[in-house]
Amino acid sequence: MVTAICPIVLRVHADDNVAAVGNSGGLPAGTVLPDGIILRRNVPQGHKVALRDIGVDEPILRYRAVIGHATRDIARGDWVDGSALRMPAPPSLDDLPHASGKVAALPPLRGHTFEGYRNADGTVGTRNLLAIGTTVQCVAGVVDHAARRIREELLPRYRNVDDVVALDHVYGCGVAIDAPGAEIPIRTLRNILRNPNFGGAPLLVGLGCEKLQPDRLAGTALTDLPLVRLQDESHTGFASMITAILEAADRRLAQLDTRRRETCPVSDLVVGVQCGGSDALSGMTANPAVGVAVDLLVRAGATAMFSEITEVRDGIAQLTARAATPEVADALIREMRWYDAYLERGGVDRSANTTPGNKAGGLANIVEKAMGSIVKSGTAPIAGVVPAGERADRKGLLFVATPASDFVCGTLQLAAGMTLHVFTTGRGTPYGLAAVPVIKVATHNALAERWHDLIDLNAGTIATGEASVEDVGQSLFALMLDVASGRIRSRAEGLRLHNALAVFNPAPVT
Amino acid sequence: MVTAICPIVLRVHADDNVAAVGNSGGLPAGTVLPDGIILRRNVPQGHKVALRDIGVDEPILRYRAVIGHATRDIARGDWVDGSALRMPAPPSLDDLPHASGKVAALPPLRGHTFEGYRNADGTVGTRNLLAIGTTVQCVAGVVDHAARRIREELLPRYRNVDDVVALDHVYGCGVAIDAPGAEIPIRTLRNILRNPNFGGAPLLVGLGCEKLQPDRLAGTALTDLPLVRLQDESHTGFASMITAILEAADRRLAQLDTRRRETCPVSDLVVGVQCGGSDALSGMTANPAVGVAVDLLVRAGATAMFSEITEVRDGIAQLTARAATPEVADALIREMRWYDAYLERGGVDRSANTTPGNKAGGLANIVEKAMGSIVKSGTAPIAGVVPAGERADRKGLLFVATPASDFVCGTLQLAAGMTLHVFTTGRGTPYGLAAVPVIKVATHNALAERWHDLIDLNAGTIATGEASVEDVGQSLFALMLDVASGRIRSRAEGLRLHNALAVFNPAPVT
Repeated sequence: MVTAICPIVLRVHADDNVAAVGNSGGLPAGTVLPDGIILRRNVPQGHKVALRDIGVDEPILRYRAVIGHATRDIARGDWVDGSALRMPAPPSLDDLPHASGKVAALPPLRGHTFEGYRNADGTVGTRNLLAIGTTVQCVAGVVDHAARRIREELLPRYRNVDDVVALDHVYGCGVAIDAPGAEIPIRTLRNILRNPNFGGAPLLVGLGCEKLQPDRLAGTALTDLPLVRLQDESHTGFASMITAILEAADRRLAQLDTRRRETCPVSDLVVGVQCGGSDALSGMTANPAVGVAVDLLVRAGATAMFSEITEVRDGIAQLTARAATPEVADALIREMRWYDAYLERGGVDRSANTTPGNKAGGLANIVEKAMGSIVKSGTAPIAGVVPAGERADRKGLLFVATPASDFVCGTLQLAAGMTLHVFTTGRGTPYGLAAVPVIKVATHNALAERWHDLIDLNAGTIATGEASVEDVGQSLFALMLDVASGRIRSRAEGLRLHNALAVFNPAPVT
Repeated sequence: MVTAICPIVLRVHADDNVAAVGNSGGLPAGTVLPDGIILRRNVPQGHKVALRDIGVDEPILRYRAVIGHATRDIARGDWVDGSALRMPAPPSLDDLPHASGKVAALPPLRGHTFEGYRNADGTVGTRNLLAIGTTVQCVAGVVDHAARRIREELLPRYRNVDDVVALDHVYGCGVAIDAPGAEIPIRTLRNILRNPNFGGAPLLVGLGCEKLQPDRLAGTALTDLPLVRLQDESHTGFASMITAILEAADRRLAQLDTRRRETCPVSDLVVGVQCGGSDALSGMTANPAVGVAVDLLVRAGATAMFSEITEVRDGIAQLTARAATPEVADALIREMRWYDAYLERGGVDRSANTTPGNKAGGLANIVEKAMGSIVKSGTAPIAGVVPAGERADRKGLLFVATPASDFVCGTLQLAAGMTLHVFTTGRGTPYGLAAVPVIKVATHNALAERWHDLIDLNAGTIATGEASVEDVGQSLFALMLDVASGRIRSRAEGLRLHNALAVFNPAPVT
């Protein structure tokens, strides 16, 4: 029985032997797919259908990757549900392809610019922000009060400054600051202070007796940071502390206010991408479109960063093969090993990532989820690896080694130097950051329509056939340049939706 | 040569063979102490002087505890600096005294009351607060916005409600939620929602796809919690979410507004004590005064909670000896073992707690620091042990097993049911919490004078001889009843100084 529904089947790669149903209500048994395949059962949206006969134990391919092996003979047109495939063991980190050289550099893309704030160190910001860094959470109450006062009383006088950002966090004391791994939170906080959107000279507020002393936080990278230390004898109480911070802020605001946007090549942009609240369409609509935009950025010479270790672990062979040099492949493997050991120390493994919701939505396992996540990285060679909390030291496509947690990932991408954030979501999350604009991309039309005042771009049109992945990728690239230039404010920015910094500290608290 | 300075020497216990100099400038060589001892060298403030001859390898006693063994012969009147004593090995957790029964219950104290908000479950709050709990950090931007609107638009209509508290945190997703230890953050968040200051019925805002689903957060302890789930199809975007939260808040505020304070016995009070930004006087002025107040609370039948595992680890024998029953002693030992293993897994030990500042201030090592910290617990038998994140299930003196980090400890004491917080500080910290009033006690006069608008009580008068430990303890007890009753607002409360929740998660992030 052939139905009147226009069937949408999303095949990611020509080699794949399964594809997913795009129609929002799924497709009924008997539907004839465009290439003549007849569905043998009802298949829900996001779930997979076999494109050819697959014998028992044969590999099931999606995203040109083995997402499992058939547990039984599967006929062309069958629904390939979770029980039809066996999850593979995690790929060994030995004997991986090392920069096999098959991935050629993408052709250059010229003629695109954005309007940014150029800093003395050569970096370029997308916003002109006064940042108030903190050494320790003890000072957060005072800093929050000061930031509110600055926003209300001082900021209106400095029309060229976009906002004031209080960089509160829960690190800085009551932590094993010399333990293995403690270098991660310390350098994270240091490098966030160096984020290009802060113009190269944030204020710093410290307490006095904290373990993370200002010098240790600043390292050699930050010098002459204006510092207000609350325990200094010059501060005679709360009112005095606030006065000192407001005075320091006033001086800094006057400097920031003289800055103007200037036309910059796209190569000065640093974009971080991640996905959160993923659904079955994430890997077929929004993430591939981000991949297209990432390729455009890389072709234009920009820095594009992808992350989320547990969501690339099963695709590590793809990544090492795409490494620009053997050293980059080695660095990728080193980060996977470190994280494997971190999880093992905590008594879990990579399967801690998937949720029942993922599976109900059509994702068979973490392997399939990973493949749908990795596509955000596009097709360029991987130019470098940034360990958690480090700052990117080169342009091109970079892997920033972070957990998949949205907030931990966002915080670490801020440390890496991100000046624009792209976040894809299927289930929906009202994510936002105070330090950089966040562009949110919906994976399907219903979310984009329902969350009309929270979603910046709808990639759901790919699933309905209204637009191609290439179309949406191009639109995202154009939107990135508009948002980076301040011509458009992202939804989260306009609503002042700010999630807190979540500092990754693998060491004990004490 | 006898000087004109009035020498102040602080001996904590009659058995001690060392005591500390209290004078702010220290005392010069030649000073004759009240009992005829002549100082043989200059001794800085907070540092120790020998009260009798101590032979090499003999124990050095402070707080009636062995804080080390002499590395050389020490003469009466000598400065006992860090080099004069050898830090002992951590006490074994085997063969500890088990509720030796030598600590008798303290005599009852009658006749004291406070004005509190009685809840349906029998607990009593010190404030009448609307709490908005969150399952996951994803919703924090929306909840913060809603809380601001509630405070500005709704709260003025409900004069009997003190404030609205957004319970933001960084847990809830991107975490290994089934890993060993993950029960700690989950029950912490659950029990914070049950804090008596929230009247037994907070609102809850969830996302929809988060790992920490509302049911798992609520457990069996919380039922019929009003829930706004942002991904529900009924919410058509940000404005719609805010409307839903404001409507739920309005209904809840109308209920809370009908509540009135009533006279309650002190036994309905739940006080958490901790110290932070400690100096050498913490263990001689503020902390012993807190100990006196804790004894008064326990005698009046209240719940008094002390914490900070690394700061009691070296005094564990004192604690097990004070355990009310062998089961309590076993529970104390179990918590020490768990934390020893936690530190070892992270590659550190108990010495990760002390800082160079502690040593410069006269604290020889973590043992001496611990002894000065434990005195906050007073002298009562220990009635129970509350594992991290659990809620107290009895009255009396309780050990709440938390790291010493001010914010992690405060968050876990909130979960245990604390309705009033006492925080002693020497170096000074502008600490505050949104959910309970925090009384800050200074260890010395200079801090109390300089931070006149942040410190609630000055225990420095003990060091100068103007007041006894007993005097200040009695004053603190009276202040606690005033603050608990809302007759006095603590400094942090008046200034709205709110440190963020810091949820203790010993499991991996993913």
